[in-house]
Amino acid sequence: MKVNGEHYRSLWADRTAGTVMAIDQTMLPHRFEIVTMRTLEDVAFAIRHMQVRGAPLIGAAAAYGMVLAAQHNGSDANLDQAMRQLIATRPTAINLQWATTRMRTFLQGFPIIRRAQAAWDEAARICDEDVSLNQTMARHGLGLIQTMAQRKSGVLNVLTHCNAGWLATVDWGTALGPVYAAHDAGIAVHVWVDETRPRNQGAHLTAWELGQHGVPHTVITDNAGGHLMQQGEVDLVIVGADRVTRHGDVCNKIGTYLKALAAYDNQIPFYVAVPSPTIDWALDRQQIPIENRPETEVATVQGLAADGQVTALSILPAGSQVANPAFDITPAKLVTGILTEHGVCAPEGLIAMFKEA
Amino acid sequence: MKVNGEHYRSLWADRTAGTVMAIDQTMLPHRFEIVTMRTLEDVAFAIRHMQVRGAPLIGAAAAYGMVLAAQHNGSDANLDQAMRQLIATRPTAINLQWATTRMRTFLQGFPIIRRAQAAWDEAARICDEDVSLNQTMARHGLGLIQTMAQRKSGVLNVLTHCNAGWLATVDWGTALGPVYAAHDAGIAVHVWVDETRPRNQGAHLTAWELGQHGVPHTVITDNAGGHLMQQGEVDLVIVGADRVTRHGDVCNKIGTYLKALAAYDNQIPFYVAVPSPTIDWALDRQQIPIENRPETEVATVQGLAADGQVTALSILPAGSQVANPAFDITPAKLVTGILTEHGVCAPEGLIAMFKEA
Repeated sequence: MKVNGEHYRSLWADRTAGTVMAIDQTMLPHRFEIVTMRTLEDVAFAIRHMQVRGAPLIGAAAAYGMVLAAQHNGSDANLDQAMRQLIATRPTAINLQWATTRMRTFLQGFPIIRRAQAAWDEAARICDEDVSLNQTMARHGLGLIQTMAQRKSGVLNVLTHCNAGWLATVDWGTALGPVYAAHDAGIAVHVWVDETRPRNQGAHLTAWELGQHGVPHTVITDNAGGHLMQQGEVDLVIVGADRVTRHGDVCNKIGTYLKALAAYDNQIPFYVAVPSPTIDWALDRQQIPIENRPETEVATVQGLAADGQVTALSILPAGSQVANPAFDITPAKLVTGILTEHGVCAPEGLIAMFKEA
Repeated sequence: MKVNGEHYRSLWADRTAGTVMAIDQTMLPHRFEIVTMRTLEDVAFAIRHMQVRGAPLIGAAAAYGMVLAAQHNGSDANLDQAMRQLIATRPTAINLQWATTRMRTFLQGFPIIRRAQAAWDEAARICDEDVSLNQTMARHGLGLIQTMAQRKSGVLNVLTHCNAGWLATVDWGTALGPVYAAHDAGIAVHVWVDETRPRNQGAHLTAWELGQHGVPHTVITDNAGGHLMQQGEVDLVIVGADRVTRHGDVCNKIGTYLKALAAYDNQIPFYVAVPSPTIDWALDRQQIPIENRPETEVATVQGLAADGQVTALSILPAGSQVANPAFDITPAKLVTGILTEHGVCAPEGLIAMFKEA
């Protein structure tokens, strides 16, 4: 993706310097800053505090967390400990588990002294593969959008929740990949961007990256999407996911379920874009751990003050309690289709699609 | 209601001084300030800028707008003009139309010279009647809650959206009236408070007034309610309304529809508390005007800064568009019951209930 015309990935490494860099997503859209990670602890901090976020991106970051751990000490015990530490940063997205397990298994095949070098190679492959998965998904999704656009005169309105764009991945994005592909192919698309409280990933990140790419978009509160659907202002909903079960149940940012209900009630297609590392072939939906995040995320809002400082305001009366569940689960019955690197299928077709592929 | 132990209404008049006072709801929960209105223009400003808000309260305020207009000039032409000006401040809540029409019709029976005095009397009656309607509704609603509480061990969890408490009325509240009555009757109730973006009436007003009354409550983002319902953490949803059609379709704060869908999907009772002045016996749901409010409400968030100032932050990237529809319509099929001063009925029973009454 391009930032002010210059090409960036959300995360990249400098192998010579032994460092990993990422766009600091806690400062966007007000500041474009780069965070540099030198140790496993730096990576764990960046994931926990959401300087890097988005299921595919935290998978890639965790892979590099394993690299930095291996660079320090490539022993089995140290790698096992690093894996546990990284998985513990955020419980819901399965990509942490997927990426660290892949790194751990891969490194087992090397003598300790060669593990650091092998780790740099494998983490780079994970990043490149993420880009490639997203590009493939974008192509499949473009087909969907083209078909819909042909049936409709005028602009095609897509609603999305949270950020599943290039900032949530190494590049391209999951849910937004097809939107970028459609825009680049000359299809008139417009995106309704849910602001996505409490952390406002929609207002802060999705609006920013769509703006950088020149895609027309309108930010709305999380409350507004249902009304827009009732009014015929939404043609298609596409979201990403933090974990999808083999039965097609979708765990994604809190509030996704409400939009899926509204899409269903108004017969609007509701698609979920997930690369295979986000699919959990083992657990059922009741077993997915739902992260509860700090109260301060609900009790405060971050933004740009009149003096140009990025700061936070308190919005609650003293003494009011807060709850902050970060994800919800949209049952498969509300999902029109799941978009993966192998194409689009109904939620109940996920197992067959991957068996055939 | 009590504020720091002292009794207040949300709105009151000083007939001798010729002024109308209200709690300034744009400054809560951070500042408790009183706004004084001396002219029709002051009242129109307070309604438009939501220093007073809530369907019943803006009805009462508009009645006093007519008083201040009559005090200045009680001619038919001036009263007609005042009525138009007040109705134009906010298009969605029918109470503005109801209260100004009642005042206008009433004053027609008096010679111009006696209209100001008559207007003070009638506006005071409208306020007293609002309190009495809400108390009656609270009694009916208490019955509902008592029945539910008897069937459940432990705390009864009520979810509400926006503010339909005493701040939305002259006193007691519509949706929260039954909650206060239940709490006062010793029933263990806990309220999930949707923050209600963009203006955060839940976080700013509902949380504050529940806190003042000592009712246990937890503030959540507008995204969280569906998940809590899936988890069995919500026993009952109660909201107010800005306009209810004779068929039981409910126009209320944007986002209400999404909560109604989730309640329906999880078989949780969804009640709407409305006094008769909020029922529109004429229009169908497609005909209700939905107010679009200023973009700045979405683009910024107001709160308390570290230095103790009430200020606003910008949360959007430069150049992102915004849409801000302020209300949505929950179709009657999703509504379990409507609570009015005559009791509780199914949405399709509204006409019969009022015919019988």
